This record gives sequence, structure tokens and C-alpha cells, in this order.
Amino acid sequence: MRTLLVIGIGAGDPDQMTIQAIKALNRAEVVFIPAKQGKDGLAALRREICRRFMTRESWREVNYPVPKRAEPDPSYRQSVDDWHAAIGATWEKLLEDELDENGCAALLVWGDPSLYDSTLRIVGHLARRGRIAFDYEVFPGITSIQALAAKHRIALNTIGGPVHVTTGRRLTEKFPADADSVVVMLDGVQAFRGLPPENVDIYWGANLGTDSESAIAGPLGEKADAISQARATARDKAGWVMDTYLLRKRLPDGD
Amino acid sequence: MRTLLVIGIGAGDPDQMTIQAIKALNRAEVVFIPAKQGKDGLAALRREICRRFMTRESWREVNYPVPKRAEPDPSYRQSVDDWHAAIGATWEKLLEDELDENGCAALLVWGDPSLYDSTLRIVGHLARRGRIAFDYEVFPGITSIQALAAKHRIALNTIGGPVHVTTGRRLTEKFPADADSVVVMLDGVQAFRGLPPENVDIYWGANLGTDSESAIAGPLGEKADAISQARATARDKAGWVMDTYLLRKRLPDGD
Repeated sequence: MRTLLVIGIGAGDPDQMTIQAIKALNRAEVVFIPAKQGKDGLAALRREICRRFMTRESWREVNYPVPKRAEPDPSYRQSVDDWHAAIGATWEKLLEDELDENGCAALLVWGDPSLYDSTLRIVGHLARRGRIAFDYEVFPGITSIQALAAKHRIALNTIGGPVHVTTGRRLTEKFPADADSVVVMLDGVQAFRGLPPENVDIYWGANLGTDSESAIAGPLGEKADAISQARATARDKAGWVMDTYLLRKRLPDGD
Repeated sequence: MRTLLVIGIGAGDPDQMTIQAIKALNRAEVVFIPAKQGKDGLAALRREICRRFMTRESWREVNYPVPKRAEPDPSYRQSVDDWHAAIGATWEKLLEDELDENGCAALLVWGDPSLYDSTLRIVGHLARRGRIAFDYEVFPGITSIQALAAKHRIALNTIGGPVHVTTGRRLTEKFPADADSVVVMLDGVQAFRGLPPENVDIYWGANLGTDSESAIAGPLGEKADAISQARATARDKAGWVMDTYLLRKRLPDGD
């Protein structure tokens, strides 16, 4: 049977690859690398990882165009479903065309496949549909959340406290309930600017582990402008920006 | 100045070490390894990681006794603070006694130092107190949450949805607000058994990446007994058990 390896590659620094991920990578005879318009920096990281860690004698890189996503419309969920179906059809064809019946291919996923990444959902659908018979395995990777915490040398949680992980899209106007620590990923709209800044600290980072990395921490009200500016600078430098941040309610005892 | 490296070592499989963590480990001339009563399996993993990944010519392992934690009492927070102060005093003495003024030591942290681990909080206090002058750096590691998701080949979040990470202690009687996906760590009391099981799926794993690993997934009501049994089996086999699970509200459309 064909095998597809879904490999988490870390948050930007190739040295965040695990030994497990490197061993998995070396099982693949083909690596599928998306060619996204305007995000060549991300494809370059995937190539750098292959160049640095592939030790098997022969392997191929196969590029594929990423289907365009329809503009988010009132039925947000439908546009996501359509987009995933198009990506799935692309991968199914790659599995059929690029692998023989016992071949092995890899998909390299930025961060960890388990968090705000659609690869596993799409691959799961393909496997259950079974038009092409294949098995798949998953290898975790360091996320930008972990790179952020390491950079700021902080724990995400307060003592015994919960951590709420969410998206910029959902972080509107107020802190989520039941949490004093909130991690925000996928924030294209700088949602932190819409929160009441009183008694909130922010630990922010962009493009961590890369040449364009930037990190700022402090009271939200004082640091919001500096973060917006650093975010724009990182984007100018890299051609893309991926930022992550922790928001923490300031407690009276300073924990 | 002395340097202390706080290194995440992954969730159990030594191959979850990152290249970054391995390079950091090899900067250390001394590795501090806790000798906890009854948890020799955990010390053995740390030794195995040193044995496998240390390539520098000379280094030393220094064992230290972990201060005992007072039984949790009504003032839970106070017993934690006292315990952390005792651990901090132990580490401060190790830094003073085992390193010369420019020496470098490593602490190996199970999982990732940013999640439900007190190392960074304690080390931060020591650094600010400054009785011994030292700098410290942090290196992320794969958490049991990520190993769990990879094992079950799932994403933690629903499409665009939040993920709430919490402890067994806090998961009492009801689902946290504002989340359909809840990850539970540090659950000594099998808190999942106290939840109304209707329309909830559980993805559970124990000792993932080790010889005693176990994983079960399905509707909470159907799987709770099997999980309790598998948990006891893993504990018998390894002498310790660390389990993690995802609880997911079942949605009408089956996402």
C-alpha cells in the first residue's frame, strides 16, 4: 500500500526538526512541496529542511500548485470545505501519479499538524474515501506557541491554570471565559488591538526562529503600537509574517 | 557568567528530541538529573537521552534529591510556593557547587518547559533574586498533547475553533465554557469519569512513545471503563503513568 507521512517541521528554525521527523523524512522517496504565490519563503524553508536532513541516496521533490481559496463569505465554513476538497483532489492525484503501489511520500507541515492546520482533516477524508488506497502516519513538530514561550522564557499557564488557544478571528472584544492565559494564532487582523488593555500583559512574537524574527513583551496598552510596527517590519523583511502571542491577565499577586 | 539551559526532551520517545535541543545538551558540562523516589523510569529516560545524544568528550551527571511536596491542603497555592522555594534552593546550590564562574549546566524537562512545568517559574525567580549570577536559555520540546494528536492522527481543534488546555483538578462536572475541544493534562483522578458523557468523544493516551504506551478513542460513555483499565495496566508496566486526553463535543455535522 502507498504511505503518506505527515511531518511537523517546527516553527521556522530547521533545527526544530526532531530525530523522529528526520527519520520519517528519510523514508520518503517523494516530498510534496506546495508552490504558493507570494509565500516563497515558506517553500524555501521546506527545501532547506530537505537539503539539510535528507540522507537517503535518491528522492524527488514534487511541487504542486495550491488551489485558491474563495474569499471568505457569510458561509465561511462552506468556503473552507470547498477549498479542502480542492486540495484533497490535488493530493489524491499526486499519490496516484507520483508513487507506485508501495511508494512513500511526505508532506511537510509548518509547526505541528495538530494545531490550526487542515492537512490531517483532508488526508483523513481521502483515506476514508479510499479512491486511492493509502495509509498515513503523523509526526509532531514544535509549534510557534512553543517557540514563543521559549523565546520569552515563560510558561503559558499560571500555576495549575488553564490555557485557551484560539484564533484572531475569534478573539473579539473580550477575553474568553474560564481562562487567564490566552494564546492567539492565525491573527491576520491584529485582534489584540480590539481588547480592553487594562491589566493584560502580551508576549508577542513573529517569524520566530527565522532571520526576520521579532519579539516584544509588556503591558498590552503600552506595547500595542510597537508590536504593530514590528509586525510590519517582519513582513517587509521576510515577505510574509506569522505571529503568535500570549495574553495574560495580570493578577494582584504578580504570578 | 554561569549558564543554565532548560531543555524540553519530548513526551517519552528519545527520538522526539529536536536538533536544537541536542545542540544545547552538548553545550552542557553538567546535567542535573532529579532522583525521585518511585519514578526511576523518568530518570532512566533522561539518562538514555544523554547516552544517545551527548557527543562532547567530557560531561558529568549530577543527581539531586527532589524536595518532598507537602500534602495539598486547603491553601493549595501555599504548598506549591513552599515546594518551589525548596527546589529553587537545591538548584541554586547545584549552580554554585557544580559550576565554575563560566560553567554551563542543563536541566532536562519532560515535554515542553512552557506547559504545566514549574522549572521556568523557579529558575526565573532565582535569576531575578541574583544570589548566584547566571543566565538561562530555553529550548522547546514535543509535549504529550502533540504525541497524543499524532498517535490518533487528529487535529486538536475543529475548523477555526478554540482549544482549551486544562488540568484534571479543574475539569469538574462540566465542560469549560467557550470551547468544544478540551485537552486535559495532569489528571491523577480520572476526571473524565465525572463529566456527563453524552455527545462527547475522548481521545486518550498514556505513556506515549514508551514501551508501556496505550491509546484509546471513542464515545466517552463507551470507552471510560476501558480507559481506566488501560491506565492501570500502563502504570503496572512502567511503574508510573502520565496520561493526556482530548475531549471533543460531537457536532451534528460530524466535523
